[in-house]
Amino acid sequence: MVTSPGISSPPAVLALAGGVGGAKLALGLALSLDPGELVVCVNTGDDETFHGLHVSPDLDTIMYTLSGLSNEETGWGVADDTFTALEMLGKFGVDTWFNLGDRDFATHIRRTQLLADGKTLSEVTDELNRSLGVTQLVVPMSDDSVKTVLATDEGELPMQRYFVGRRAEPKISEVRYLGADTATAAPGFQDALARAGMLVMCPSNPYLSLGPILAIPAVRQRIRAFPGKKVCVSPIVGGDAVKGPAGKIMAELGKEVSCVQVAREYLDICDVLVIDVQDEALAPQIQEMGITPLVTSIIMKTSQDKIALAKEILTLAN
Amino acid sequence: MVTSPGISSPPAVLALAGGVGGAKLALGLALSLDPGELVVCVNTGDDETFHGLHVSPDLDTIMYTLSGLSNEETGWGVADDTFTALEMLGKFGVDTWFNLGDRDFATHIRRTQLLADGKTLSEVTDELNRSLGVTQLVVPMSDDSVKTVLATDEGELPMQRYFVGRRAEPKISEVRYLGADTATAAPGFQDALARAGMLVMCPSNPYLSLGPILAIPAVRQRIRAFPGKKVCVSPIVGGDAVKGPAGKIMAELGKEVSCVQVAREYLDICDVLVIDVQDEALAPQIQEMGITPLVTSIIMKTSQDKIALAKEILTLAN
Repeated sequence: MVTSPGISSPPAVLALAGGVGGAKLALGLALSLDPGELVVCVNTGDDETFHGLHVSPDLDTIMYTLSGLSNEETGWGVADDTFTALEMLGKFGVDTWFNLGDRDFATHIRRTQLLADGKTLSEVTDELNRSLGVTQLVVPMSDDSVKTVLATDEGELPMQRYFVGRRAEPKISEVRYLGADTATAAPGFQDALARAGMLVMCPSNPYLSLGPILAIPAVRQRIRAFPGKKVCVSPIVGGDAVKGPAGKIMAELGKEVSCVQVAREYLDICDVLVIDVQDEALAPQIQEMGITPLVTSIIMKTSQDKIALAKEILTLAN
Repeated sequence: MVTSPGISSPPAVLALAGGVGGAKLALGLALSLDPGELVVCVNTGDDETFHGLHVSPDLDTIMYTLSGLSNEETGWGVADDTFTALEMLGKFGVDTWFNLGDRDFATHIRRTQLLADGKTLSEVTDELNRSLGVTQLVVPMSDDSVKTVLATDEGELPMQRYFVGRRAEPKISEVRYLGADTATAAPGFQDALARAGMLVMCPSNPYLSLGPILAIPAVRQRIRAFPGKKVCVSPIVGGDAVKGPAGKIMAELGKEVSCVQVAREYLDICDVLVIDVQDEALAPQIQEMGITPLVTSIIMKTSQDKIALAKEILTLAN
């Protein structure tokens, strides 16, 4: 059993990731780098307790993706999973709006057990990933609890209740990261921030996926001072999110829904913003802001797309 | 939600039960009595924590049987259950010798959650059973932890490790009920002992199933003083257990493997011992011990068998 995640050699790349878009690029990077050359730091602001079990949706999406178990159709959970346990929980009168497959349940059961045994989320994450054959280091953003909570026109909603339970329909007026101000970046994240040669901010929701990571004290400052190349891939293409509610949220928060706004969000922590060919006309605006735009095809449908984008990003390191 | 199990009208019958044989007769009694007329008190000496979840094998066998969900082929678990979560747990390097189906996992997840919420095992048991439509009152023998541990030629083994993990193969020299001396009978059990008109000791293993119940202080004395008819159904037929290791254990403990030995075990707490027609010749020995033998067919294969035996037992009440 692994007791503490460690990095044997300096990682070439530290990727910050949230949900599905993040997992796609993380996979592209994993397939383009040697094992040990990639550290993926994952949002845990969506973590939630369901049925007494600790569920880490983004950590699991990354783990299932990197281990080849992910359900690529839905973007969450394990491929070919069954939903027998959840159906039975329904018979016990339990609210089952959050879909959890049987294989997925095993992950949450095991995580909960290891956490109850006193292991940190970093240690648990490392053990689960290694068990499934993941050769990259996957670390949670923090071992402390940070909860992304949304102020909406239906009241305050925790992330999963908003995103899954209410299908991202309520109108958002503010995004809060409860606990972030007292949270500490996970040891593996801190280590990678100190040793990585390149930082990649995956095309994840700036408010719901990367926002919680950046809300941890000192993280933003440390990224600002990060000596290697800092590359961000825009989650916004052609005036909307490639997937998910990022575009809708930007609009609700009164922001411009474009990759230019992404540049604004990351102005102090981004050297290169990778934008899609559809947004080529916006490149000069980004350039003017002091960020180098890289125009390429950033919509990842196939493994080839993911690897091609990853390789193009990796060439920026030099 | 039910907060406390209660008995609205005096129950006609209190049945003490353990595993499969107990569940069969409990079902026969349930099918022969009106709802509310039966309280089933169940052994929890086999309870064990698997993967951080509280598993109550005998409580579940009774619940699945009374709710019509039981797997009658195997004698444990839910019919047509799948084993997807357990298979995934195996990928996490977890020991999966104890078979747990996906539907069964839901029960343990829910039980564990409710216990963590501060409910007693009695309250949890009642809630789970009512959710599945069980109209009888099912109570654990105690809300306190009692662990059946076996001294064997392979060392000390907890019940499930002996019974499932080692397929009841080790030779037993002693049966211990850890925690029994400080445990209290569950409120619903105490209530039924005070109010029931008849006590039925189901054909369960005297050492592994009914032994833990009788090991709780005051329970044996209260049964001794119980004013109604006390009927026991022999788990031994024709010199061996109908199912399970009761016969083997009796032999290992240096006891006679027969229904006469069952009479000896319950000498002070049994008015009528129901024995099988195969054992008719032993009836006079039982009679001589001061227990009334009732000779009938006690092997329950069909629902009709279960109902027939239950009805024959119920006629003894008068």
